[in-house]
Amino acid sequence: MSAYDPDNIFAKILRGEIPSHKVYEDEHTLAFMDVMPQGTGHTLVVPKAPSRNILDADPETLSRVIPVVQKIAVAAKEAFEADGVTVIQFNEPAAGQSVYHLHFHVIPRFEGVPIKRHAGAMEDQGILTANAQKMRDALAG
Amino acid sequence: MSAYDPDNIFAKILRGEIPSHKVYEDEHTLAFMDVMPQGTGHTLVVPKAPSRNILDADPETLSRVIPVVQKIAVAAKEAFEADGVTVIQFNEPAAGQSVYHLHFHVIPRFEGVPIKRHAGAMEDQGILTANAQKMRDALAG
Repeated sequence: MSAYDPDNIFAKILRGEIPSHKVYEDEHTLAFMDVMPQGTGHTLVVPKAPSRNILDADPETLSRVIPVVQKIAVAAKEAFEADGVTVIQFNEPAAGQSVYHLHFHVIPRFEGVPIKRHAGAMEDQGILTANAQKMRDALAG
Repeated sequence: MSAYDPDNIFAKILRGEIPSHKVYEDEHTLAFMDVMPQGTGHTLVVPKAPSRNILDADPETLSRVIPVVQKIAVAAKEAFEADGVTVIQFNEPAAGQSVYHLHFHVIPRFEGVPIKRHAGAMEDQGILTANAQKMRDALAG
């Protein structure tokens, strides 16, 4: 397993060097819309502490991030009136990991709608902006 | 969302009413082989506290279970000489949840080998027994 690369895209988002559609932030965690969603409302939850993936993460970092994954899953189900939620976390290229900073995918699911492939098509920015607002509203409500 | 059903299959495994290929147990958590694996070494991590899925779980339960998910992911990668690990957690039928007790899937991944479908074919008991031993050895080592 390679070392952590501080120039990965999520590290840049965490440092504010590139923009994201943020939906939630606390001392240890950031959540933002996936720009290549596998379904409507696909949101990413990222700990601020650096690790490549779950294999090298500090267990305390994991214990802090998972209640936020839950919060985002509950909000996403509400915001998009979803029937269910899939949580996925990829480790290493063979598993489909494409950004090497630990992250959890929270994907709202709808009856009869298959999940789209990972890192597929780029979503329209207007839709991402609107969906981020729906998420913030659900989290505030 | 329906209430928690104490007669779901994982509750029965937790109570010892039906057997499982156990690989790890502590005060709050049990890990055992998935009998319908989506890949070699597919292991389930289950908190002992009852909840239907992540949507109704106690956040403290989640914070306790996720370091075990990590432990199992690291051990599974070693035990099966995997190239990566996918962690999946399904919530509600639309997401593919088929047993209504919160659980995390830990699936070793191998270059070029696609993940099999969820709840597909039943694995041979001898293979499950051997794989559970590989996991226990990796966890002990």
